[in-house]
Amino acid sequence: MVKTVGIVGLGLIGGSLARLLAGRDVEVVAWNRHEKPYAAARRDGITCVASLEGLAAEKPEVLFLCNPLKAMPEMLRRLAPVLDRETTTLSDVGSVKAMVRSQVAQAGLADCYVGAHPMAGTEFSGFAASDPAIYDHALWSVTVDETTDYERFLKVATLITGAIGNRVIVLDDQTHDRAAAMISHAPHVVSTALINGLASSPDRNIAAALAAGSWRDMTRVALTDPDRTRAMVEEDADNVEALLRDLADRLTSFADDLHDRDDAALTKFFAAGQPFRDYKSRERESGENGALGADGHIERIVIDIPNSGWQRTFLDSARRGEHVVRFLQPWRAEVETRSKI
Amino acid sequence: MVKTVGIVGLGLIGGSLARLLAGRDVEVVAWNRHEKPYAAARRDGITCVASLEGLAAEKPEVLFLCNPLKAMPEMLRRLAPVLDRETTTLSDVGSVKAMVRSQVAQAGLADCYVGAHPMAGTEFSGFAASDPAIYDHALWSVTVDETTDYERFLKVATLITGAIGNRVIVLDDQTHDRAAAMISHAPHVVSTALINGLASSPDRNIAAALAAGSWRDMTRVALTDPDRTRAMVEEDADNVEALLRDLADRLTSFADDLHDRDDAALTKFFAAGQPFRDYKSRERESGENGALGADGHIERIVIDIPNSGWQRTFLDSARRGEHVVRFLQPWRAEVETRSKI
Repeated sequence: MVKTVGIVGLGLIGGSLARLLAGRDVEVVAWNRHEKPYAAARRDGITCVASLEGLAAEKPEVLFLCNPLKAMPEMLRRLAPVLDRETTTLSDVGSVKAMVRSQVAQAGLADCYVGAHPMAGTEFSGFAASDPAIYDHALWSVTVDETTDYERFLKVATLITGAIGNRVIVLDDQTHDRAAAMISHAPHVVSTALINGLASSPDRNIAAALAAGSWRDMTRVALTDPDRTRAMVEEDADNVEALLRDLADRLTSFADDLHDRDDAALTKFFAAGQPFRDYKSRERESGENGALGADGHIERIVIDIPNSGWQRTFLDSARRGEHVVRFLQPWRAEVETRSKI
Repeated sequence: MVKTVGIVGLGLIGGSLARLLAGRDVEVVAWNRHEKPYAAARRDGITCVASLEGLAAEKPEVLFLCNPLKAMPEMLRRLAPVLDRETTTLSDVGSVKAMVRSQVAQAGLADCYVGAHPMAGTEFSGFAASDPAIYDHALWSVTVDETTDYERFLKVATLITGAIGNRVIVLDDQTHDRAAAMISHAPHVVSTALINGLASSPDRNIAAALAAGSWRDMTRVALTDPDRTRAMVEEDADNVEALLRDLADRLTSFADDLHDRDDAALTKFFAAGQPFRDYKSRERESGENGALGADGHIERIVIDIPNSGWQRTFLDSARRGEHVVRFLQPWRAEVETRSKI
């Protein structure tokens, strides 16, 4: 059981996590780049310290970097000389994992690092908007590589399934970042390209006048802060690039097939996504949706984790659509089996 | 003032229109391919007849074809020998206009035709789901070509701005269908291509587990009936093809720029849609949204319509973001000037 957690950055994600843990008898020590949230945080039982170095000196068992990604290199540079690597496992909640791991390695902290990314958040930011409930029924990616120490991995993962009370999938950085590019980063670019197309058309006011639900849905994310979208895309550039090229190929093929009125090819195109449609309709019917906490088709089974190649066993489990809910002993995990695509 | 209107097809769109007009002292005569909705329609003051030929024999001043697009050729073929072209102006409410006009021409009915397309509807269908309120604050495209008779155009357009009480933009078929492809038909294909990409990935269950709001929004329309999407796309094939090629080019260029870390090009990409973002934020701030009936920045002005080239004058007005609300006399129209992109 992890008894002390350090939090760097009391924003929406870090602040909510600190409050959640403090409310569950974990000793939480936090540092924020300014002291504005300290009074409120202290009322919630969070120990706030004056410096990042002071936070490291508290030797928390797990230290979560919850600062913005662009501050990561500086945080790591300052932590490197002061972190007690024996006691403290370093983690983070960043939305891309390969970039953070390489920055961690650059700072010489690779041996005590385990990555993490909770699927949680709202459109707001800052400690004032923080709320432990953003973690209700959340799924975390815990990211590991071949060199990750299993004890440290367990420390982070059991903190999430235990005190935090969430589900976990265990991934390598590339799988995480590719999936994030697929479901978020690349679609943001597509949405932006759609509004760019409209904005450059002589018929833009006519098109906007005729726009209804489908256009509104497809372009909503293009209306959010383009600088934030750009940063997100550049942090996961290789995956976004590959996915956009793949999508451009799919669209070009479809345009060719439509031009040729290739009936079989068009049929194939509209059938290809059917497994995803079926999955969504099963999810809807059964109420199987993490956010609702309903259980639909969910069943629990126990999987054995091998001593060597445990990373692969967890990855295969995640690929089968399973989520870890509990570690029964160091080498066994209880997983929820869910609807699969 | 149009006093008699014929309706072919008492589905959601036709049924709602018939009920709306019957409630406003217009004589409405309707025919439906089966008599199931007749009892309810008659209670709403709609005269229901036994055959399409019988409907034509009633000589309505305007006859709206509200049947499914795929039934259009058959309806036109049956109407051609029986329609009193002197008295009756033929119109329709189809979601693509070039295809319908060519079918109308094929049936030899071009001289009495004026196209129309109301931006109205719900996810339901059939007379049981009909509701005159689906036309509240609706915008109609009225589609014309160089040969359209101005008197007939006025008959349809003043029925819409008068008894129906809606706004109108006057377009050529190509402009209408290109705009519809831009805001709906092509985005449906893009959304489908996104779910196809996910479904074909070995990481599909992981990606689906990590998916949040942006993915949900971007793929919602891909979950709707793929056969209907396919029909919609094939009915507007040339425009969809061109837009998909344009989008594929935009995505490929972006992928190249991202690969090269071309800062200036990336900046340009994220700035290109800014006029649309600004337009949407003005619209939100002012509550200028037809569906809400609020008036925001809307002002009314009168435009003069020339005897010759009136089609172009209306098209230019629509391109400026103006909507016709009233015809003051045959050659003057009152338009609302709205926020522009």
